Amino acid sequence: MKPTSERRRPVTRGDVALHAGVSTAVVSYVVNAGPRNVAPATRERVLDAIRDLGYRPNAAARALKLGVSGIIGLVVSDNTNPFFAEYARAVEREAAGIDLSVILTNSALSASLEHQLVQKLVSRQVDGLLLASTDDDPDLESAKDAHIPVVLIDRAGPEEGFASVGVDFREASRTAVEHLIAHGHRSIGIISGLSGGTTTRDRELGWAEALAVAGLPEGPMVRVDFGRIGGYEAGRRLLALQDRPTAIYAISDMQAIGLLRSVHEAGVRVPEDLAVISFDGSAESEYSWPPLTAMRQPVAEMARAAIEALGDGMTGITAHQTFRAELVIRRSCGCDAPDDEVSG
Amino acid sequence: MKPTSERRRPVTRGDVALHAGVSTAVVSYVVNAGPRNVAPATRERVLDAIRDLGYRPNAAARALKLGVSGIIGLVVSDNTNPFFAEYARAVEREAAGIDLSVILTNSALSASLEHQLVQKLVSRQVDGLLLASTDDDPDLESAKDAHIPVVLIDRAGPEEGFASVGVDFREASRTAVEHLIAHGHRSIGIISGLSGGTTTRDRELGWAEALAVAGLPEGPMVRVDFGRIGGYEAGRRLLALQDRPTAIYAISDMQAIGLLRSVHEAGVRVPEDLAVISFDGSAESEYSWPPLTAMRQPVAEMARAAIEALGDGMTGITAHQTFRAELVIRRSCGCDAPDDEVSG
Repeated sequence: MKPTSERRRPVTRGDVALHAGVSTAVVSYVVNAGPRNVAPATRERVLDAIRDLGYRPNAAARALKLGVSGIIGLVVSDNTNPFFAEYARAVEREAAGIDLSVILTNSALSASLEHQLVQKLVSRQVDGLLLASTDDDPDLESAKDAHIPVVLIDRAGPEEGFASVGVDFREASRTAVEHLIAHGHRSIGIISGLSGGTTTRDRELGWAEALAVAGLPEGPMVRVDFGRIGGYEAGRRLLALQDRPTAIYAISDMQAIGLLRSVHEAGVRVPEDLAVISFDGSAESEYSWPPLTAMRQPVAEMARAAIEALGDGMTGITAHQTFRAELVIRRSCGCDAPDDEVSG
Repeated sequence: MKPTSERRRPVTRGDVALHAGVSTAVVSYVVNAGPRNVAPATRERVLDAIRDLGYRPNAAARALKLGVSGIIGLVVSDNTNPFFAEYARAVEREAAGIDLSVILTNSALSASLEHQLVQKLVSRQVDGLLLASTDDDPDLESAKDAHIPVVLIDRAGPEEGFASVGVDFREASRTAVEHLIAHGHRSIGIISGLSGGTTTRDRELGWAEALAVAGLPEGPMVRVDFGRIGGYEAGRRLLALQDRPTAIYAISDMQAIGLLRSVHEAGVRVPEDLAVISFDGSAESEYSWPPLTAMRQPVAEMARAAIEALGDGMTGITAHQTFRAELVIRRSCGCDAPDDEVSG
C-alpha cells in the first residue's frame, strides 16, 4: 500500500501561513491562483512553505503532486556489505511492486552522517523512510515533524513510537553456538562488533547463554568493526592466543570472510582445526572457502514486512516484528555438506 | 556541477502551449499566476504539460523547482555484484558532494526491465541518469524526449549521441593474460560472459591478442553468466577437461569467486596447479582464498567522471572517456604476495 496523506496528521493551510509569514487567505490565493494577485516574492515564500511542510491542498496535490514523491528512502550503514546489498535489493523489489522507487544511502556507520542523510531525505519529501540505524535511539525528529512514516530495520527490539523489523539476534546466536557445541566443541570464541548496540549485544548474549546452558566457559571475545578487515584482524588475534578456541562464532559474514583469510594465511584448517559459524548468510558466505555455515537472515520477508509497515502509516505506533534466522549448514562447522548445492 | 536547464535544448513556452492545447498567453498566465485568471481544469492541463516536458520558465523554476528534483537515477544490472555495489557507493558519494541524491535500481540483466526502469526514472523527472546498460544500443528515447541528460557507464566505447565512461576492457585483458604468460603459462583458458556485448567481446579479444602475440594457442573458453554460480559451473567444466589449462582468466570477480569454489572442491591448488586472474578488483577479490590477482577498475575515478559528464549536460554529444584498469598482484597468479596487505 502506498502511504497516503490521509493517514498522517495533515498539514493545514494555517501551518503554511505561519511558516510563510502570511495570512491563510494569501495561501489560498496562491494555491488557487486567485482570485486576488499575490506579489511574486510572497508567492515564492508560500510555495517554499508548501514544499517544506509537505502541504497537500486537494487540488494542488493532484495538479503538482506536491510531496507525493513516489520515492522512499533507505538508509543502511554499508551498501557494500553483502547483507545490506541483498536487503536493499529486496526492498527495491517490494517497493517496485507498488510503484515506489528507492533512494539508497549509506551512513558508513556514522551517526552524524546518518542524521544528515535522514534530514536530506526528509527535505526531499520522500514518502517514507526505512532506516538501519547505527544508533539504538536514532534522532528522527525531522521525519516526525514532516509526518513522514519511518520503519526501523535491522532492529533487535521495539523502539518507542516506531514500527520496526528485525531477526531475533539472541535466539539465532544461541542456535549457532548450540550447533558448535553439538559438534563437540568446548572452547568457542566470538568475533563481535565494536558498536555496543542492542543487535550486537543480543548476539553476544545468545552466545553466552548457549555456553552457560551447556555448562561451558565463555571462550575468548574479540570486538572489531563489521568489515572484512575487522574479521581479519580478529582472526590474527584469536589464532595468536596460547589457548586457542576450537570454534569461532562470527556475528557477521564480512567478519567471517576476513577471519577465513587470516586462518588460511596461518595454515589452519577449517573445520578440522577450527570450526566457524557466521551470521547473515549472504551469497558471500556461500562462496567463501570453505563455504560458511551461517545463520541466514530472511531478507526478503523482512523487506516485505518493512514496506508493508510503511504503507500502513504506522508512524507514532510502537510495533516490532521479529523474524527467525535459519541455520544453513555448509562446510565450515564440520558437517558433511554436499559439494553441489550452490545457488545465486 | 548540477545539471542546468541552460545546457539542454530548452523547452519553450510554445512547446507547453502545444502540449496543453492552449495559447502561449495562457501558459504565461499560469506560470505567472496572472494577470488573468485561468480555469482550474485548464491550469491543471498546463501544469501537467510543464511537468511532462520539463519546462523551466525562469521564475517558475526558481519558485516551484519544477523538474529540478535534486535526484539522479542509477541503473545497474546487479547491485549485489560487489563491483556495482562499490560503483554505486562511489556515485552516491560524488553526487552527495553536489547535493544530489541517487536512486539506485537494478535491471537484473534484463533489457526489458532496464527499459521500464529508465521510463520510470524519466517519469520521476530525475535530473540525470547513469546507465550501465545490458544492451549495446539501449533505448533511451524517453530520456531524450524529456531532455534528461544520460551518461552510459561500464561502456567499452562511444555510443552515438551520448556521453559514456568505461575502462579499456581490451587492454586490461591483454595485461592480465600477459602476466599469466610471464609466469610461464602456455595453456590459458578464459571464463567469459553470455551477453555477447562489446564489454564482454573486448575482454575476449584482449585475451586472444595477448596469446597471439606470444605465439600461444587459445586455451578453452567457457561462456557463463556473470554470477558466482556461473563461475562455479565454468570451473567444473574446465577442470573436467582432459587437457586442462594451467591458468584461467575470469572476466569478473563473481565468476572468479565461483571458480575458486569448484577448484577447492576438486582439491586443485591455486596457484600451484591452476593460476587465476580476475577482472574488477572488488573487495570480494581481496578476501577470497587465495586472494585474487585482479585487474582493478578505477571505480571512484569513473564515478566522478560520470557525474561530471552529467553536470556538463552532454546530452546529444558523443563523448567517451576511457580509464585504465590496474593489475593488483595477490596470490592467485603465482606471485609471492605479502600476507598483511589488506584493506577495506
